[in-house]
Amino acid sequence: MSASFFVPVRFVGVVGGDCPFDLVKVFAGRDVDLTGLEIRKESKTFRWAGTYHENMDDRTTDLTELNVLAEAPPSVPKEFKDSKYVFLANTTPALQLQLLEQIDEPEFVAVDTMNLWIEGHLDDLKTLLKKIHCLIINEDEARMLATESNLIKAGEIILDMGPSVVILKKGESGSIMCSSDGDKFILPAYPATEVKDPTGAGDSFAGGFMGYLAQSGKVDFETLKTAIAYGTVVASFTIADFSLSGLTSIDRADIDERLEILRKLTTF
Amino acid sequence: MSASFFVPVRFVGVVGGDCPFDLVKVFAGRDVDLTGLEIRKESKTFRWAGTYHENMDDRTTDLTELNVLAEAPPSVPKEFKDSKYVFLANTTPALQLQLLEQIDEPEFVAVDTMNLWIEGHLDDLKTLLKKIHCLIINEDEARMLATESNLIKAGEIILDMGPSVVILKKGESGSIMCSSDGDKFILPAYPATEVKDPTGAGDSFAGGFMGYLAQSGKVDFETLKTAIAYGTVVASFTIADFSLSGLTSIDRADIDERLEILRKLTTF
Repeated sequence: MSASFFVPVRFVGVVGGDCPFDLVKVFAGRDVDLTGLEIRKESKTFRWAGTYHENMDDRTTDLTELNVLAEAPPSVPKEFKDSKYVFLANTTPALQLQLLEQIDEPEFVAVDTMNLWIEGHLDDLKTLLKKIHCLIINEDEARMLATESNLIKAGEIILDMGPSVVILKKGESGSIMCSSDGDKFILPAYPATEVKDPTGAGDSFAGGFMGYLAQSGKVDFETLKTAIAYGTVVASFTIADFSLSGLTSIDRADIDERLEILRKLTTF
Repeated sequence: MSASFFVPVRFVGVVGGDCPFDLVKVFAGRDVDLTGLEIRKESKTFRWAGTYHENMDDRTTDLTELNVLAEAPPSVPKEFKDSKYVFLANTTPALQLQLLEQIDEPEFVAVDTMNLWIEGHLDDLKTLLKKIHCLIINEDEARMLATESNLIKAGEIILDMGPSVVILKKGESGSIMCSSDGDKFILPAYPATEVKDPTGAGDSFAGGFMGYLAQSGKVDFETLKTAIAYGTVVASFTIADFSLSGLTSIDRADIDERLEILRKLTTF
Protein backbone atom coordinates (compact mmCIF):
# COMPACT_ATOMS: atom_id res chain seq x y z
CA MET A 1 0.00 0.00 0.00
CA SER A 2 2.76 2.37 1.03
CA ALA A 3 4.96 1.71 -2.04
CA SER A 4 1.99 2.01 -4.40
CA PHE A 5 1.97 5.80 -3.97
CA PHE A 6 5.21 5.80 -5.97
CA VAL A 7 5.25 2.89 -8.45
CA PRO A 8 3.29 -0.16 -9.58
CA VAL A 9 3.84 -2.86 -6.95
CA ARG A 10 4.10 -6.61 -7.25
CA PHE A 11 2.82 -8.31 -4.14
CA VAL A 12 3.99 -11.74 -2.97
CA GLY A 13 2.55 -13.11 0.24
CA VAL A 14 0.43 -15.72 1.87
CA VAL A 15 -2.53 -15.60 4.26
CA GLY A 16 -4.73 -18.28 5.76
CA GLY A 17 -8.39 -19.02 5.23
CA ASP A 18 -9.11 -17.01 8.36
CA CYS A 19 -7.89 -13.70 6.87
CA PRO A 20 -10.63 -11.22 7.80
CA PHE A 21 -10.00 -8.99 4.78
CA ASP A 22 -10.63 -9.51 1.09
CA LEU A 23 -7.23 -8.29 -0.07
CA VAL A 24 -8.38 -7.87 -3.66
CA LYS A 25 -10.94 -5.36 -2.46
CA VAL A 26 -8.45 -3.68 -0.11
CA PHE A 27 -6.11 -2.93 -3.03
CA ALA A 28 -8.82 -2.20 -5.61
CA GLY A 29 -8.06 0.92 -7.66
CA ARG A 30 -4.36 0.82 -6.76
CA ASP A 31 -1.58 -0.34 -9.03
CA VAL A 32 -0.81 -3.44 -6.97
CA ASP A 33 -0.48 -6.75 -8.80
CA LEU A 34 -1.78 -9.49 -6.49
CA THR A 35 -0.79 -12.43 -8.72
CA GLY A 36 1.63 -13.40 -5.96
CA LEU A 37 -1.04 -13.54 -3.25
CA GLU A 38 -1.70 -17.05 -2.04
CA ILE A 39 -4.68 -17.87 0.19
CA ARG A 40 -4.20 -21.20 2.01
CA LYS A 41 -7.68 -22.22 3.08
CA GLU A 42 -6.39 -24.81 5.55
CA SER A 43 -3.84 -22.56 7.22
CA LYS A 44 -4.07 -19.63 9.62
CA THR A 45 -2.79 -16.11 8.94
CA PHE A 46 0.23 -14.78 10.83
CA ARG A 47 -0.89 -12.94 13.98
CA TRP A 48 0.87 -10.51 16.25
CA ALA A 49 -0.53 -8.76 19.29
CA GLY A 50 1.18 -6.30 21.55
CA THR A 51 0.67 -3.56 24.08
CA TYR A 52 2.05 -0.09 23.43
CA HIS A 53 3.43 1.78 26.40
CA GLU A 54 2.28 5.29 27.18
CA ASN A 55 4.93 6.92 24.97
CA MET A 56 3.49 4.90 22.03
CA ASP A 57 7.04 3.89 21.10
CA ASP A 58 8.05 1.04 23.39
CA ARG A 59 5.84 -2.00 23.16
CA THR A 60 5.48 -5.44 24.71
CA THR A 61 4.71 -8.40 22.47
CA ASP A 62 1.78 -10.31 23.92
CA LEU A 63 1.45 -12.94 21.21
CA THR A 64 3.21 -14.08 18.03
CA GLU A 65 1.61 -16.88 16.01
CA LEU A 66 3.72 -17.62 12.94
CA ASN A 67 1.03 -19.85 11.36
CA VAL A 68 1.50 -19.67 7.52
CA LEU A 69 4.91 -18.07 8.03
CA ALA A 70 6.13 -21.37 9.49
CA GLU A 71 5.13 -23.16 6.27
CA ALA A 72 6.72 -23.12 2.81
CA PRO A 73 6.99 -19.61 1.35
CA PRO A 74 4.67 -18.53 -1.45
CA SER A 75 6.23 -18.90 -4.86
CA VAL A 76 7.20 -15.84 -6.87
CA PRO A 77 5.08 -15.69 -10.07
CA LYS A 78 7.06 -16.13 -13.29
CA GLU A 79 6.13 -12.62 -14.44
CA PHE A 80 7.63 -11.14 -11.23
CA LYS A 81 11.06 -12.74 -11.63
CA ASP A 82 12.51 -9.73 -13.47
CA SER A 83 11.78 -7.40 -10.50
CA LYS A 84 14.64 -5.00 -9.78
CA TYR A 85 13.68 -3.44 -6.43
CA VAL A 86 12.85 -6.10 -3.88
CA PHE A 87 11.75 -5.74 -0.27
CA LEU A 88 11.79 -8.89 1.85
CA ALA A 89 9.37 -8.18 4.68
CA ASN A 90 9.90 -9.65 8.11
CA THR A 91 9.81 -13.45 8.19
CA THR A 92 12.36 -16.19 8.90
CA PRO A 93 15.69 -15.54 7.13
CA ALA A 94 15.45 -19.01 5.52
CA LEU A 95 12.15 -18.05 3.85
CA GLN A 96 13.59 -14.67 2.84
CA LEU A 97 16.51 -16.51 1.19
CA GLN A 98 14.14 -18.86 -0.66
CA LEU A 99 12.09 -15.90 -1.91
CA LEU A 100 15.18 -13.99 -3.00
CA GLU A 101 16.51 -16.96 -4.96
CA GLN A 102 13.40 -16.77 -7.15
CA ILE A 103 14.26 -13.28 -8.43
CA ASP A 104 16.55 -13.27 -11.48
CA GLU A 105 18.73 -10.18 -11.13
CA PRO A 106 17.52 -7.79 -8.44
CA GLU A 107 19.30 -4.42 -8.37
CA PHE A 108 18.46 -3.44 -4.80
CA VAL A 109 17.25 -5.81 -2.11
CA ALA A 110 16.18 -4.49 1.29
CA VAL A 111 15.37 -6.74 4.22
CA ASP A 112 13.50 -6.35 7.48
CA THR A 113 14.23 -8.67 10.39
CA MET A 114 13.49 -8.96 14.11
CA ASN A 115 14.78 -10.15 17.49
CA LEU A 116 13.29 -13.67 17.05
CA TRP A 117 15.53 -14.38 14.05
CA ILE A 118 18.61 -12.74 15.55
CA GLU A 119 18.24 -14.98 18.60
CA GLY A 120 17.20 -18.20 16.93
CA HIS A 121 18.20 -18.10 13.25
CA LEU A 122 21.45 -16.16 13.27
CA ASP A 123 23.31 -18.36 10.77
CA ASP A 124 20.55 -18.03 8.16
CA LEU A 125 20.39 -14.30 8.81
CA LYS A 126 24.13 -13.95 8.30
CA THR A 127 23.92 -15.90 5.04
CA LEU A 128 21.10 -13.59 3.91
CA LEU A 129 23.02 -10.43 4.86
CA LYS A 130 25.77 -11.38 2.40
CA LYS A 131 23.27 -11.43 -0.49
CA ILE A 132 21.38 -8.18 0.04
CA HIS A 133 22.01 -4.46 -0.26
CA CYS A 134 20.13 -2.94 2.64
CA LEU A 135 19.09 -4.03 6.12
CA ILE A 136 16.27 -2.07 7.80
CA ILE A 137 16.32 -2.79 11.52
CA ASN A 138 15.12 -1.39 14.87
CA GLU A 139 17.78 0.15 17.08
CA ASP A 140 17.47 -2.48 19.82
CA GLU A 141 17.68 -5.28 17.30
CA ALA A 142 20.74 -3.64 15.72
CA ARG A 143 22.45 -3.56 19.12
CA MET A 144 21.55 -7.22 19.60
CA LEU A 145 22.78 -8.28 16.15
CA ALA A 146 26.04 -6.34 16.49
CA THR A 147 26.48 -7.06 20.23
CA GLU A 148 27.41 -3.38 20.60
CA SER A 149 25.49 -0.82 22.62
CA ASN A 150 26.64 2.29 20.71
CA LEU A 151 24.20 2.54 17.82
CA ILE A 152 26.59 4.12 15.31
CA LYS A 153 29.22 1.47 16.02
CA ALA A 154 26.51 -1.20 15.77
CA GLY A 155 25.60 0.09 12.30
CA GLU A 156 29.23 -0.19 11.20
CA ILE A 157 29.53 -3.72 12.55
CA ILE A 158 26.40 -4.75 10.61
CA LEU A 159 27.82 -3.21 7.41
CA ASP A 160 30.77 -5.57 7.84
CA MET A 161 28.29 -8.47 7.74
CA GLY A 162 27.43 -7.75 4.11
CA PRO A 163 24.87 -5.06 3.27
CA SER A 164 26.13 -1.80 1.78
CA VAL A 165 23.40 0.19 3.57
CA VAL A 166 21.99 -0.20 7.08
CA ILE A 167 18.96 1.77 8.23
CA LEU A 168 18.57 1.95 12.00
CA LYS A 169 15.00 2.77 13.02
CA LYS A 170 14.49 4.67 16.25
CA GLY A 171 10.67 4.92 16.30
CA GLU A 172 9.56 8.35 17.49
CA SER A 173 13.19 9.50 17.22
CA GLY A 174 13.58 8.85 13.49
CA SER A 175 16.27 6.87 11.76
CA ILE A 176 19.96 6.71 10.93
CA MET A 177 21.38 5.39 7.67
CA CYS A 178 24.98 4.19 7.41
CA SER A 179 26.61 3.16 4.14
CA SER A 180 29.70 1.09 3.54
CA ASP A 181 31.22 4.15 1.78
CA GLY A 182 31.25 5.85 5.19
CA ASP A 183 28.31 8.15 4.39
CA LYS A 184 25.72 8.73 7.08
CA PHE A 185 22.30 10.36 7.21
CA ILE A 186 20.18 11.09 10.26
CA LEU A 187 16.54 12.08 10.04
CA PRO A 188 14.08 12.71 12.88
CA ALA A 189 10.58 11.28 12.66
CA TYR A 190 7.81 13.59 11.54
CA PRO A 191 6.51 15.25 14.74
CA ALA A 192 3.16 13.50 14.90
CA THR A 193 0.61 14.68 17.42
CA GLU A 194 -1.97 12.15 16.25
CA VAL A 195 -0.78 8.65 17.13
CA LYS A 196 -3.51 6.04 17.30
CA ASP A 197 -1.60 2.87 16.41
CA PRO A 198 2.11 2.58 15.54
CA THR A 199 1.62 -1.00 14.27
CA GLY A 200 2.87 -1.19 10.69
CA ALA A 201 4.93 2.01 10.92
CA GLY A 202 8.10 0.07 10.09
CA ASP A 203 6.55 -1.64 7.07
CA SER A 204 5.09 1.65 5.85
CA PHE A 205 8.54 3.20 6.19
CA ALA A 206 10.06 0.39 4.15
CA GLY A 207 7.32 0.66 1.53
CA GLY A 208 7.73 4.40 1.06
CA PHE A 209 11.51 4.01 1.00
CA MET A 210 11.46 1.24 -1.62
CA GLY A 211 8.69 2.88 -3.64
CA TYR A 212 10.65 6.10 -4.00
CA LEU A 213 13.85 4.24 -4.92
CA ALA A 214 12.03 2.21 -7.58
CA GLN A 215 10.42 5.36 -8.95
CA SER A 216 13.82 7.10 -9.09
CA GLY A 217 15.51 4.08 -10.66
CA LYS A 218 18.75 4.71 -8.78
CA VAL A 219 20.23 4.12 -5.34
CA ASP A 220 23.00 6.72 -4.95
CA PHE A 221 23.29 8.18 -1.45
CA GLU A 222 21.34 11.38 -2.22
CA THR A 223 18.44 9.30 -3.56
CA LEU A 224 18.61 6.99 -0.53
CA LYS A 225 18.36 10.06 1.75
CA THR A 226 15.23 11.33 0.02
CA ALA A 227 13.82 7.79 0.08
CA ILE A 228 14.25 7.70 3.86
CA ALA A 229 12.42 11.00 4.12
CA TYR A 230 9.55 9.58 2.05
CA GLY A 231 9.45 6.43 4.19
CA THR A 232 9.34 8.60 7.31
CA VAL A 233 6.44 10.64 5.97
CA VAL A 234 4.38 7.66 4.84
CA ALA A 235 4.83 6.06 8.28
CA SER A 236 3.62 9.28 9.91
CA PHE A 237 0.29 8.86 8.10
CA THR A 238 0.04 5.17 9.01
CA ILE A 239 0.27 5.72 12.77
CA ALA A 240 -2.49 8.33 12.77
CA ASP A 241 -5.13 5.61 12.47
CA PHE A 242 -5.72 1.88 12.86
CA SER A 243 -5.11 -0.70 10.13
CA LEU A 244 -4.57 0.88 6.69
CA SER A 245 -6.98 3.77 7.29
CA GLY A 246 -4.15 6.29 7.66
CA LEU A 247 -2.99 5.45 4.13
CA THR A 248 -6.29 4.88 2.31
CA SER A 249 -7.38 8.44 3.14
CA ILE A 250 -4.38 10.22 1.55
CA ASP A 251 -2.80 10.67 -1.88
CA ARG A 252 0.67 11.38 -3.22
CA ALA A 253 0.16 15.15 -2.94
CA ASP A 254 -0.40 14.80 0.83
CA ILE A 255 2.86 12.86 1.07
CA ASP A 256 4.81 15.43 -0.96
CA GLU A 257 3.40 18.27 1.10
CA ARG A 258 4.44 16.64 4.35
CA LEU A 259 7.88 15.87 2.91
CA GLU A 260 8.44 19.59 2.38
CA ILE A 261 7.28 20.31 5.93
CA LEU A 262 9.76 17.71 7.22
CA ARG A 263 12.53 19.31 5.16
CA LYS A 264 11.75 22.73 6.63
CA LEU A 265 11.55 21.29 10.16
CA THR A 266 15.04 19.82 9.93
CA THR A 267 17.00 22.43 7.97
CA PHE A 268 19.23 24.98 9.70
CA MET B 1 33.13 26.94 29.40
CA SER B 2 30.82 25.99 26.56
CA ALA B 3 29.51 29.53 25.96
CA SER B 4 33.01 31.01 26.10
CA PHE B 5 33.78 29.59 22.63
CA PHE B 6 31.34 32.21 21.33
CA VAL B 7 31.36 35.30 23.58
CA PRO B 8 32.82 36.71 26.78
CA VAL B 9 30.93 35.08 29.65
CA ARG B 10 29.89 36.40 33.05
CA PHE B 11 29.79 33.61 35.61
CA VAL B 12 27.58 33.67 38.71
CA GLY B 13 27.69 30.67 41.01
CA VAL B 14 28.58 29.34 44.40
CA VAL B 15 30.68 26.41 45.59
CA GLY B 16 31.65 25.21 49.04
CA GLY B 17 35.03 25.06 50.70
CA ASP B 18 35.28 21.42 49.60
CA CYS B 19 35.34 22.25 45.86
CA PRO B 20 38.17 20.10 44.51
CA PHE B 21 38.98 22.52 41.66
CA ASP B 22 40.52 25.97 41.62
CA LEU B 23 37.96 27.49 39.26
CA VAL B 24 40.16 30.50 38.53
CA LYS B 25 42.78 28.11 37.15
CA VAL B 26 40.17 26.07 35.30
CA PHE B 27 39.01 29.14 33.36
CA ALA B 28 42.44 30.75 32.97
CA GLY B 29 43.04 32.05 29.44
CA ARG B 30 39.32 32.07 28.63
CA ASP B 31 37.14 35.15 28.49
CA VAL B 32 35.11 34.19 31.56
CA ASP B 33 34.58 36.84 34.23
CA LEU B 34 34.51 35.08 37.61
CA THR B 35 33.54 38.16 39.65
CA GLY B 36 30.26 36.37 40.41
CA LEU B 37 31.94 33.25 41.81
CA GLU B 38 31.39 32.88 45.53
CA ILE B 39 33.31 30.32 47.58
CA ARG B 40 31.57 29.58 50.91
CA LYS B 41 34.27 28.07 53.09
CA GLU B 42 31.77 26.69 55.63
CA SER B 43 29.45 25.12 53.06
CA LYS B 44 29.63 22.08 50.84
CA THR B 45 29.43 22.07 47.03
CA PHE B 46 26.40 20.64 45.25
CA ARG B 47 26.96 16.97 44.44
CA TRP B 48 25.22 14.60 42.06
CA ALA B 49 26.05 10.97 41.40
CA GLY B 50 24.34 8.60 39.01
CA THR B 51 24.73 5.41 37.04
CA TYR B 52 24.42 5.43 33.28
CA HIS B 53 22.72 2.46 31.68
CA GLU B 54 24.36 0.57 28.87
CA ASN B 55 22.91 2.82 26.14
CA MET B 56 24.65 5.76 27.90
CA ASP B 57 21.40 7.71 27.64
CA ASP B 58 19.14 6.54 30.47
CA ARG B 59 20.55 7.05 33.92
CA THR B 60 19.66 6.39 37.53
CA THR B 61 20.33 9.08 40.13
CA ASP B 62 22.21 7.55 43.05
CA LEU B 63 22.69 10.70 45.10
CA THR B 64 21.72 14.38 45.06
CA GLU B 65 23.14 16.64 47.78
CA LEU B 66 21.89 20.20 47.29
CA ASN B 67 24.32 21.63 49.88
CA VAL B 68 25.05 25.29 48.87
CA LEU B 69 22.10 25.18 46.46
CA ALA B 70 19.78 24.95 49.47
CA GLU B 71 21.23 28.20 50.84
CA ALA B 72 20.76 31.82 49.69
CA PRO B 73 21.75 32.34 46.05
CA PRO B 74 24.97 34.16 45.19
CA SER B 75 24.40 37.82 44.42
CA VAL B 76 24.78 39.13 40.91
CA PRO B 77 27.71 41.60 40.78
CA LYS B 78 26.72 45.20 40.02
CA GLU B 79 28.70 45.17 36.78
CA PHE B 80 26.73 42.11 35.54
CA LYS B 81 23.29 43.68 35.96
CA ASP B 82 23.16 44.94 32.37
CA SER B 83 23.53 41.39 30.96
CA LYS B 84 21.21 40.74 28.00
CA TYR B 85 21.50 36.98 27.45
CA VAL B 86 20.92 35.08 30.67
CA PHE B 87 20.99 31.34 31.32
CA LEU B 88 19.61 30.18 34.67
CA ALA B 89 21.20 26.79 35.23
CA ASN B 90 19.39 24.06 37.10
CA THR B 91 18.59 24.95 40.71
CA THR B 92 15.37 25.58 42.68
CA PRO B 93 12.94 27.82 40.77
CA ALA B 94 12.84 30.19 43.79
CA LEU B 95 16.60 30.75 43.53
CA GLN B 96 16.33 31.15 39.76
CA LEU B 97 13.66 33.84 40.34
CA GLN B 98 15.87 35.64 42.89
CA LEU B 99 18.81 35.59 40.47
CA LEU B 100 16.69 36.81 37.57
CA GLU B 101 15.34 39.74 39.60
CA GLN B 102 18.90 41.04 39.93
CA ILE B 103 19.27 41.53 36.15
CA ASP B 104 18.01 44.91 34.90
CA GLU B 105 16.60 44.28 31.43
CA PRO B 106 17.50 40.87 30.05
CA GLU B 107 16.60 40.34 26.40
CA PHE B 108 16.59 36.54 26.38
CA VAL B 109 16.40 34.34 29.45
CA ALA B 110 16.70 30.57 29.15
CA VAL B 111 16.10 28.22 32.06
CA ASP B 112 16.98 24.61 32.84
CA THR B 113 14.93 22.65 35.35
CA MET B 114 14.49 19.07 36.55
CA ASN B 115 12.03 16.49 37.95
CA LEU B 116 12.75 17.47 41.58
CA TRP B 117 11.36 20.99 41.04
CA ILE B 118 8.44 19.84 38.88
CA GLU B 119 7.40 17.47 41.66
CA GLY B 120 8.10 19.65 44.69
CA HIS B 121 8.25 23.31 43.59
CA LEU B 122 5.67 23.52 40.84
CA ASP B 123 4.16 26.88 41.90
CA ASP B 124 7.57 28.61 41.89
CA LEU B 125 8.38 26.99 38.56
CA LYS B 126 5.12 28.23 37.05
CA THR B 127 5.82 31.76 38.33
CA LEU B 128 9.29 31.58 36.77
CA LEU B 129 7.95 30.31 33.43
CA LYS B 130 5.88 33.49 33.06
CA LYS B 131 9.04 35.64 33.29
CA ILE B 132 11.39 33.88 30.89
CA HIS B 133 11.73 33.34 27.15
CA CYS B 134 12.99 29.80 26.80
CA LEU B 135 12.72 26.57 28.78
CA ILE B 136 15.28 23.84 28.07
CA ILE B 137 14.00 20.56 29.43
CA ASN B 138 14.49 16.77 29.08
CA GLU B 139 11.71 14.91 27.30
CA ASP B 140 10.62 12.93 30.37
CA GLU B 141 10.51 16.08 32.46
CA ALA B 142 8.50 17.83 29.76
CA ARG B 143 5.94 15.01 29.82
CA MET B 144 5.82 15.30 33.60
CA LEU B 145 5.41 19.10 33.59
CA ALA B 146 2.73 19.02 30.89
CA THR B 147 1.08 15.80 32.14
CA GLU B 148 0.94 14.72 28.49
CA SER B 149 2.72 11.73 26.99
CA ASN B 150 2.91 12.99 23.38
CA LEU B 151 6.07 15.07 23.33
CA ILE B 152 4.95 17.57 20.69
CA LYS B 153 1.70 18.19 22.53
CA ALA B 154 3.67 18.48 25.80
CA GLY B 155 5.80 21.19 24.19
CA GLU B 156 2.70 23.13 23.19
CA ILE B 157 1.22 22.85 26.68
CA ILE B 158 4.45 24.21 28.19
CA LEU B 159 4.41 27.14 25.73
CA ASP B 160 1.00 28.04 27.18
CA MET B 161 2.69 28.30 30.60
CA GLY B 162 4.69 31.34 29.50
CA PRO B 163 7.92 30.83 27.54
CA SER B 164 7.93 31.69 23.84
CA VAL B 165 10.39 28.88 23.10
CA VAL B 166 10.60 25.34 24.53
CA ILE B 167 13.53 23.06 23.76
CA LEU B 168 12.86 19.39 24.41
CA LYS B 169 16.08 17.41 24.87
CA LYS B 170 16.06 13.76 23.84
CA GLY B 171 19.63 12.78 24.71
CA GLU B 172 21.13 10.53 22.04
CA SER B 173 18.09 11.30 19.86
CA GLY B 174 18.64 15.05 19.65
CA SER B 175 16.20 17.82 20.41
CA ILE B 176 12.97 19.48 19.33
CA MET B 177 12.28 23.21 19.55
CA CYS B 178 8.73 24.58 19.59
CA SER B 179 7.94 28.29 19.48
CA SER B 180 4.74 30.11 20.40
CA ASP B 181 4.55 31.32 16.78
CA GLY B 182 3.94 27.68 15.81
CA ASP B 183 7.42 27.17 14.34
CA LYS B 184 9.19 23.90 15.05
CA PHE B 185 12.71 22.57 14.55
CA ILE B 186 13.96 19.03 15.04
CA LEU B 187 17.64 18.16 15.13
CA PRO B 188 19.23 14.76 15.78
CA ALA B 189 22.22 14.53 18.09
CA TYR B 190 25.66 14.36 16.52
CA PRO B 191 26.32 10.63 15.93
CA ALA B 192 28.98 10.18 18.57
CA THR B 193 30.91 6.93 18.68
CA GLU B 194 33.07 8.10 21.58
CA VAL B 195 30.89 8.43 24.69
CA LYS B 196 32.78 8.33 27.97
CA ASP B 197 30.54 10.43 30.23
CA PRO B 198 27.27 12.15 29.27
CA THR B 199 27.28 14.17 32.52
CA GLY B 200 27.10 17.86 31.66
CA ALA B 201 25.85 17.27 28.11
CA GLY B 202 22.70 19.27 28.86
CA ASP B 203 24.63 22.19 30.34
CA SER B 204 27.09 22.16 27.44
CA PHE B 205 24.14 22.21 25.07
CA ALA B 206 22.66 25.21 26.87
CA GLY B 207 26.05 26.99 26.94
CA GLY B 208 26.66 26.56 23.22
CA PHE B 209 23.08 27.57 22.48
CA MET B 210 23.24 30.75 24.60
CA GLY B 211 26.78 31.58 23.49
CA TYR B 212 25.80 31.53 19.83
CA LEU B 213 22.67 33.61 20.47
CA ALA B 214 24.64 36.21 22.40
CA GLN B 215 27.26 36.32 19.66
CA SER B 216 24.55 36.77 17.01
CA GLY B 217 22.75 39.41 19.05
CA LYS B 218 19.34 38.22 17.87
CA VAL B 219 16.82 35.51 18.63
CA ASP B 220 14.72 35.09 15.48
CA PHE B 221 13.78 31.49 14.69
CA GLU B 222 16.55 30.96 12.10
CA THR B 223 19.15 32.08 14.64
CA LEU B 224 17.60 29.87 17.33
CA LYS B 225 17.87 26.89 14.96
CA THR B 226 21.57 27.46 14.34
CA ALA B 227 22.06 27.99 18.08
CA ILE B 228 20.53 24.56 18.75
CA ALA B 229 22.92 23.05 16.23
CA TYR B 230 25.87 24.71 18.00
CA GLY B 231 24.61 23.47 21.39
CA THR B 232 24.31 19.97 19.98
CA VAL B 233 27.86 20.04 18.64
CA VAL B 234 29.43 21.40 21.83
CA ALA B 235 27.63 18.69 23.83
CA SER B 236 29.04 16.05 21.48
CA PHE B 237 32.55 17.09 22.49
CA THR B 238 31.67 17.14 26.20
CA ILE B 239 30.50 13.52 26.33
CA ALA B 240 33.66 12.22 24.68
CA ASP B 241 35.58 12.59 27.95
CA PHE B 242 35.16 13.07 31.69
CA SER B 243 34.80 16.46 33.42
CA LEU B 244 35.66 19.39 31.14
CA SER B 245 38.37 17.52 29.24
CA GLY B 246 36.23 17.15 26.13
CA LEU B 247 35.99 20.96 25.91
CA THR B 248 39.42 22.07 27.05
CA SER B 249 41.01 20.10 24.20
CA ILE B 250 39.11 21.82 21.35
CA ASP B 251 38.75 25.28 19.84
CA ARG B 252 36.06 27.16 17.91
CA ALA B 253 37.31 25.81 14.57
CA ASP B 254 36.66 22.24 15.76
CA ILE B 255 33.12 23.25 16.68
CA ASP B 256 32.49 24.95 13.33
CA GLU B 257 33.87 21.95 11.46
CA ARG B 258 31.57 19.56 13.30
CA LEU B 259 28.61 21.90 12.73
CA GLU B 260 29.11 21.56 8.98
CA ILE B 261 29.32 17.78 9.32
CA LEU B 262 26.05 17.81 11.27
CA ARG B 263 24.44 19.96 8.58
CA LYS B 264 25.53 17.53 5.88
CA LEU B 265 24.37 14.53 7.94
CA THR B 266 20.85 15.93 8.26
CA THR B 267 20.17 17.53 4.87
CA PHE B 268 18.19 15.79 2.14
